Amino acid sequence: MIKTTLLTPRTRNCINKVQKMAQLIQDFKPGPLDLYRKRASFDWKKLKVYLETEEVIQFQENLYKTLQSIPSYKIKNITSKSLDEQRKITFRRACDIKQLELFSIPNIVRNLRYSSALCRIFTVFDDHTYIKLTVGENLFSQSIMNMGTERHQQFIDDANDGKIFGSYCLTEIGHGSNARGMRTTATYDKAKKVFVLNSPDFEAAKCWAGGLGQTAMYGTVYAQLVLDGKHYGLHAFVVPIRDPKTLLPYPNVEVGDMGEKIGLNGVDNGFVRFKNYEIPRASLLNKVADVTEDGRYVTPIKDPKKRHGAALGSLSAGRVNIACMSESLGVKAITIAIRYAGVRKQFGPEGKGEIPILEYQSHQLRLLPYLAAAYVLRNFNTWMSQCFLQFTIDQVMGNAKSDAPEMGVEIHGVSSAGKPMAGWIMKEAVQESREACGGHGYLKVSEFGDVRNEHDPNLTYEGENHILIQQTINWLLKFWPQILENRAISSPLGSVDFLSRGQDILRHSTFDFRGIDELCHPESIIKIYQWLVVYLLKATHEKIEEQVKAGKDLFAAKNDSQVYFGKSMAMAFIQHFFLQRMLVTIKEADDLAIKAVLSKLFSLFGLWCIEKYHVTTLYKGGFAVGTLPPALIHDSILKLCADIKDDAIALIDAIAPPDFLLRSALGASDGQVYKHLEDSFYNNEYCMNRPPWWRDIIKQTQSHFSKL
Amino acid sequence: MIKTTLLTPRTRNCINKVQKMAQLIQDFKPGPLDLYRKRASFDWKKLKVYLETEEVIQFQENLYKTLQSIPSYKIKNITSKSLDEQRKITFRRACDIKQLELFSIPNIVRNLRYSSALCRIFTVFDDHTYIKLTVGENLFSQSIMNMGTERHQQFIDDANDGKIFGSYCLTEIGHGSNARGMRTTATYDKAKKVFVLNSPDFEAAKCWAGGLGQTAMYGTVYAQLVLDGKHYGLHAFVVPIRDPKTLLPYPNVEVGDMGEKIGLNGVDNGFVRFKNYEIPRASLLNKVADVTEDGRYVTPIKDPKKRHGAALGSLSAGRVNIACMSESLGVKAITIAIRYAGVRKQFGPEGKGEIPILEYQSHQLRLLPYLAAAYVLRNFNTWMSQCFLQFTIDQVMGNAKSDAPEMGVEIHGVSSAGKPMAGWIMKEAVQESREACGGHGYLKVSEFGDVRNEHDPNLTYEGENHILIQQTINWLLKFWPQILENRAISSPLGSVDFLSRGQDILRHSTFDFRGIDELCHPESIIKIYQWLVVYLLKATHEKIEEQVKAGKDLFAAKNDSQVYFGKSMAMAFIQHFFLQRMLVTIKEADDLAIKAVLSKLFSLFGLWCIEKYHVTTLYKGGFAVGTLPPALIHDSILKLCADIKDDAIALIDAIAPPDFLLRSALGASDGQVYKHLEDSFYNNEYCMNRPPWWRDIIKQTQSHFSKL
Repeated sequence: MIKTTLLTPRTRNCINKVQKMAQLIQDFKPGPLDLYRKRASFDWKKLKVYLETEEVIQFQENLYKTLQSIPSYKIKNITSKSLDEQRKITFRRACDIKQLELFSIPNIVRNLRYSSALCRIFTVFDDHTYIKLTVGENLFSQSIMNMGTERHQQFIDDANDGKIFGSYCLTEIGHGSNARGMRTTATYDKAKKVFVLNSPDFEAAKCWAGGLGQTAMYGTVYAQLVLDGKHYGLHAFVVPIRDPKTLLPYPNVEVGDMGEKIGLNGVDNGFVRFKNYEIPRASLLNKVADVTEDGRYVTPIKDPKKRHGAALGSLSAGRVNIACMSESLGVKAITIAIRYAGVRKQFGPEGKGEIPILEYQSHQLRLLPYLAAAYVLRNFNTWMSQCFLQFTIDQVMGNAKSDAPEMGVEIHGVSSAGKPMAGWIMKEAVQESREACGGHGYLKVSEFGDVRNEHDPNLTYEGENHILIQQTINWLLKFWPQILENRAISSPLGSVDFLSRGQDILRHSTFDFRGIDELCHPESIIKIYQWLVVYLLKATHEKIEEQVKAGKDLFAAKNDSQVYFGKSMAMAFIQHFFLQRMLVTIKEADDLAIKAVLSKLFSLFGLWCIEKYHVTTLYKGGFAVGTLPPALIHDSILKLCADIKDDAIALIDAIAPPDFLLRSALGASDGQVYKHLEDSFYNNEYCMNRPPWWRDIIKQTQSHFSKL
Repeated sequence: MIKTTLLTPRTRNCINKVQKMAQLIQDFKPGPLDLYRKRASFDWKKLKVYLETEEVIQFQENLYKTLQSIPSYKIKNITSKSLDEQRKITFRRACDIKQLELFSIPNIVRNLRYSSALCRIFTVFDDHTYIKLTVGENLFSQSIMNMGTERHQQFIDDANDGKIFGSYCLTEIGHGSNARGMRTTATYDKAKKVFVLNSPDFEAAKCWAGGLGQTAMYGTVYAQLVLDGKHYGLHAFVVPIRDPKTLLPYPNVEVGDMGEKIGLNGVDNGFVRFKNYEIPRASLLNKVADVTEDGRYVTPIKDPKKRHGAALGSLSAGRVNIACMSESLGVKAITIAIRYAGVRKQFGPEGKGEIPILEYQSHQLRLLPYLAAAYVLRNFNTWMSQCFLQFTIDQVMGNAKSDAPEMGVEIHGVSSAGKPMAGWIMKEAVQESREACGGHGYLKVSEFGDVRNEHDPNLTYEGENHILIQQTINWLLKFWPQILENRAISSPLGSVDFLSRGQDILRHSTFDFRGIDELCHPESIIKIYQWLVVYLLKATHEKIEEQVKAGKDLFAAKNDSQVYFGKSMAMAFIQHFFLQRMLVTIKEADDLAIKAVLSKLFSLFGLWCIEKYHVTTLYKGGFAVGTLPPALIHDSILKLCADIKDDAIALIDAIAPPDFLLRSALGASDGQVYKHLEDSFYNNEYCMNRPPWWRDIIKQTQSHFSKL
């Protein structure tokens, strides 16, 4: 043992830190995964600390202890229970979690990394509760915070104190993506000094509101404001829904539960219809526009589009979070599948015994690109969440920087592609992981069913992916004139700065890589991506112009320039930005082994995306010529997978949720797949018992076939 | 009205047929889908009759009436019920369906199209029961039929009469794809004249056997035959599992239920372990090999590989069927999504009202390629099912043709790629359809959750897709030497005949299409595919050779030539064969409108698959050169989608399951999406009622936060 008294203070500090870290991060139990753990080219604990920071690891460990002690979590496997039981348990859990005040602003600002850490933990620990709290409760108080004034303070306080339960009511049965098309009206009655809410029909009912089905007493309701017969667009109101003493709806309010969903059934999504329902004038959330007692409309913002944007601002946070939720569920799935692949043996060279399925090229190609994607997305989401929080805190504290408006627009543009891209990739990761575990992956205890059902809405809510990504397309298209004029382009997050060299990139870039090493180099991959974005920007712009010239209106011209043009551009753009942020993390790493393995993940993700989405465009735009490029891309991907294979288990260890969060018979850190499967079989209630109706079976065989 | 007496007998007959058909096929109720129905370029009823034949339509209609009258089907929505209830209901239904004797050989041979028609109906009507009957019951008696002799006749009769329930026990916990690696042993005891079954450990337990969990009394069990300490490979035995009078397991048999699965929970999949369990010598299914009383092994088949193949022959039928099940679930999903897209309106050109989402290019590209795939697969599966049945009947009746061995091999080679390809495409179709219905697609009543959960095992059972497709790769590779020698190649189903021109194809084919019309022509697409298959066959062969030369053993060399080589070849091969069969159906159509619309579906499927899977290879092999090919492919796909869009609803009408099978609030044939949604909300038990535990909610807000 080193005598610490003989060391310099700096070295002693370092050693202390490593020891502290080692205490925090437990070794895994010895078992079948040791084979691969011993082969790893880097220290997974060091990687974990580098990616997470010691403070976050400490925070996580503390939280794990707390979560394991909460009584409402003694109940297991809630998704096998009845709808009503799932609702009841989730309500109880939401109350228990809420009192920890984890998502409160003071907790979040202690360390800007806590928000993404919390998102990751809760998404796998209990996303029913997490969604009930964030998309139900929090969105209610945040929307009042964003759009209300002092007169609404009491609602925020009561909601935070748990005196009332709230809900966020935007979507209607007939309108989701097209928020402007909402048909609920709020008509001001000058005589009574009230707003009268009306839902003209079932299609205009508010729906999908989290918590509205059974528990909400109030809702933030969006409605078309009508004054003297004139429409003023969508405005938000805080509306009493149910009597807090009886939980019965108020007269003229018809509120109900939407029923069972594919997943997340702990959350009570509801719908509500108003029939001449009167609410006080002060219910209008009046930060950007108000109605005077005598029914005049007053607002400092003249542009109705900007008012509309301000009204829907609460949704941006959600998109940053959803990308992180997608990543977390994807990580859960690949953790299970990669550990299973390290344990499961099948076939082998003649006479030499069976080998783990992770050794097979075709299995590596199924899973390792998603491992690479997990690292790239995780790195991006942590950073993006911090940027977004800092931006929000600055706004709330009145410290907004001078580039705040551009930052707001950039966050919107980036997250409108980031959320879809993370969702799509991780959807495939979950499915591929399920299939890669074969039949056993179809058992409930493998966990893939729940993960898939719970990831599914990430593709839809807070903006259906295909609609949402159009926001990014529209934002990027605005840079084309600047590129044409060779003007410097710079944005607060730096996502579009490379467009400054747009003309140069178009003119001088070509696929001139001569070997695998050169192609796998991060700079080469960045070069391909920058060409892709600029070329697709140009091509999309020209395609729209061409169609307008041919007589289409702008609406039609834009719609007809999505597939193979705008959408490919937005996807290339966000993949490039993911990689750009990953490169920063690689460059900042001190440990050479960590630098090396992260670089491989970078290259695998980049080349795999290029192969999957962009080869056609590389040839269409003349960047690639001849027969060499595809051969090089293929060979590089195969080589990277073969190289990463021995590190795969350690890479999973560094990002995997602990076993009590993972809860999978196939994916536990001890690698004891068959033992856990055996336990799960024998613990199943009907495993060895005859079913309660066993006499029916015998009766049937004795009577043979009774006629119908 | 035409006076029929004045007409010739032939014309009169024709008119009668059309009238009969019109009576059989009801018009849909008027509603929002009329907009598209009126725009259709063809008569959907004529198309339906052309694809199905009148006899099959009549058969379906009769069966629909029967199914709607079965009492056990009055219970709705079984997947929301507890595991035990799902099991109980499915058992009851299986007994009810079994007595219809639909799957009996006399019924099936009445018309060789009935088998695929039945598969389609039951897959969407109740696949829990269908799978319990086919993969449980039928596989038990079929395996005895295939491998047993007269001494086992009683088991077949009893199973068919419903006196016993059987199960098929092949897979083990530790071995699935590698059937040779199974570890259950059957050791002959000469003194007692019995086989002694043993499962050395939990990993050697038989598992996944349908019906074994709760209902099976007998099982076909595969075990390694051991005589005097020597292993003779995998053999099958008919084994008593549970006492038919008490349903209790026999001593030395540990049999249990595997517990909840992701879906198909009506089926009781079980596991079984044997501990010195003695079964009579006659239990051995002894068609291809027997053990004499004194323990000698006798067999007319000298090659152990062929014996192994014969033992597993029962699985081929399953693969042909699973491709059809995948297609049916995919058709169900796209029916819902395409009808929803025809009704759901969102956004629109400035001031012109909203338009159906089916009008959007990006939505067309999400759904219409899967519509095209549904037609191509449906056509193929119907034909393949007939070929397979004819082949089986010929074998059983002793009428096997001279090319029967080649036919068996070809069926195996084709279905080993057909099942994976159909499964993969329809997996995406289901998921894309779910997403294309936005939030409402996440409601249980949309049906996508159940469809996805029930399609999932198609990717795994009867051969995990990635493993199974290697059978096709190995089979195709055998043709390379014949191509090299320019020998004529011909196979019973004709799937590889074009390889005769292999060298010519490689030498003279190039992407020389000059416009959209030329590229969309079926012959062009076939030409691209034929080049792809031959090129990839050559490339895979060379890749394996190259690696063997570099010192790898054949096992490693083959494994390392899967991705981008062997797998791409097998996929191109089966896509080509799908298209080749579709072309026959197009050519045989008399009605020009039908010919035209089927041709568009052909071209869309072909070009979409090329874009998705093969562009990289087209450039890698030098078939495509320059910037034009991708632009032409993209433009053609977009144009085909735009062309098919107005026919999409009628195309769905011609293949959609009737509403009582579809059971989706979003996909009903009347297009009344919002009405059905409203009904589903209000019919939900807790819609307007407070939950039973509502007082907890109020208590919570009044106590605010009680401490944990």
